[in-house]
Amino acid sequence: MPLQFSFEQKVLFKHCDPAGIAFFPRYFEMINDCVEQFFDEALGWPFEELLQNEGVPTAEISTRFLAPSRHGDRLRLLLTVTRVGRSALGYRIDATCNGAHRFEAEATLVHVDKSGTPTAWPEAIRAKLKENGS
Amino acid sequence: MPLQFSFEQKVLFKHCDPAGIAFFPRYFEMINDCVEQFFDEALGWPFEELLQNEGVPTAEISTRFLAPSRHGDRLRLLLTVTRVGRSALGYRIDATCNGAHRFEAEATLVHVDKSGTPTAWPEAIRAKLKENGS
Amino acid sequence: MPLQFSFEQKVLFKHCDPAGIAFFPRYFEMINDCVEQFFDEALGWPFEELLQNEGVPTAEISTRFLAPSRHGDRLRLLLTVTRVGRSALGYRIDATCNGAHRFEAEATLVHVDKSGTPTAWPEAIRAKLKENGS
Amino acid sequence: MPLQFSFEQKVLFKHCDPAGIAFFPRYFEMINDCVEQFFDEALGWPFEELLQNEGVPTAEISTRFLAPSRHGDRLRLLLTVTRVGRSALGYRIDATCNGAHRFEAEATLVHVDKSGTPTAWPEAIRAKLKENGS
Repeated sequence: MPLQFSFEQKVLFKHCDPAGIAFFPRYFEMINDCVEQFFDEALGWPFEELLQNEGVPTAEISTRFLAPSRHGDRLRLLLTVTRVGRSALGYRIDATCNGAHRFEAEATLVHVDKSGTPTAWPEAIRAKLKENGS
Repeated sequence: MPLQFSFEQKVLFKHCDPAGIAFFPRYFEMINDCVEQFFDEALGWPFEELLQNEGVPTAEISTRFLAPSRHGDRLRLLLTVTRVGRSALGYRIDATCNGAHRFEAEATLVHVDKSGTPTAWPEAIRAKLKENGS
Repeated sequence: MPLQFSFEQKVLFKHCDPAGIAFFPRYFEMINDCVEQFFDEALGWPFEELLQNEGVPTAEISTRFLAPSRHGDRLRLLLTVTRVGRSALGYRIDATCNGAHRFEAEATLVHVDKSGTPTAWPEAIRAKLKENGS
Repeated sequence: MPLQFSFEQKVLFKHCDPAGIAFFPRYFEMINDCVEQFFDEALGWPFEELLQNEGVPTAEISTRFLAPSRHGDRLRLLLTVTRVGRSALGYRIDATCNGAHRFEAEATLVHVDKSGTPTAWPEAIRAKLKENGS
């Protein structure tokens, strides 16, 4: 079973647009927050350390918005590791509210050095990414 | 030739992250601004009118980030209409800086009524979406 | 002793600018999140309910940024009620990290009805705002 | 007559909240964009150059929101230089729509070196800041 990580986010006033639903660029901030917390809590590698000499820019992300989310909704973003490459990490996000799907994303990020060159994951991180999440 | 629309956006301080490059959720704000200006200038249907009784939520968007953009870069987002459905609109975005690709996106948005139900495009809008952009 | 409310916020990647410190407009999102949580948890009046037929727009806010905050810093925003008017609420925010001041704000928000007209606080809310916070 | 600079900003979808009016933290992004463009166009010192080795963090800002702004409103932010210190710059912002006041701010920013230490303005910049704006 792949490594998974769960992130809770209430839909706040700041996330919502004049139609009263979450503005889709805000979902990408939530996804970024989820990935940041995943690195911190699941991998033990907080962004504030990682960013000193390395980076993990997003290379691609595909997102489907299945149903709108409203102010006050309590979202759960479930991150699942889908691929561990030499320097790449594939993951998907399933965002639900009370079990109903709201949006889903598939993304790839890349571990780079200070110059932006793709660089192999540290062995300890690779081991954690590949470990059985259950 | 499909309808196209060009949108200029300098990469500003607010767009950039601690790595000194544009933070990817900010690209989705730029894409939204581009689509909003396309509706205003190319279709003559500004969002502030459209939103009174209708909406155009994004149903899906797939984005590839090809090269980082830095503070001060002058981006050009070229929107190309790729599909005009009964209530859907497919488009792609090619974002370049001095001709070099930075990111590209394919997206679908849907015309909905006040209740969120997909609704056919008004005939005048459909005609503009289908007209030869050259 | 006036009513107080404490809100924790780690400085995340999304908050930081190319100088590696929190971008000041992001502090106002933090303040708004703090006020939203104060209404929810201290007053039992979540924004998603309040906003159905009323509003609490900010009338004025004065902020002093005393020291920069960096990615990873764990901020504590302490909200103190400073004035309860017929329809106005004055509060101050003291933001600290490990006890050291980072920024402080004084603000006034106003309870309005759907038309935007200032409206007296409901009696139960006024009572809570005026209760001894200790 | 002090140096002044005018900045135009349409209120866009992304700026607006569920109440259909501009979300106040977004005004601080507009103010920051205005100051960034002032440095670029009025002082000839774009932030993307300035930020290489220096910074201009905001030290304090006081804002009064006089009337709400709605999606589609065309705002004009008028920046007026109010004080030129050794390393500080005081300015005010008067934001109007068709001549009617929407918000006003008074702020101080400080010229700092890479370490964050306040540093005198370059003489050429000081001269421009003090020149008669008419």
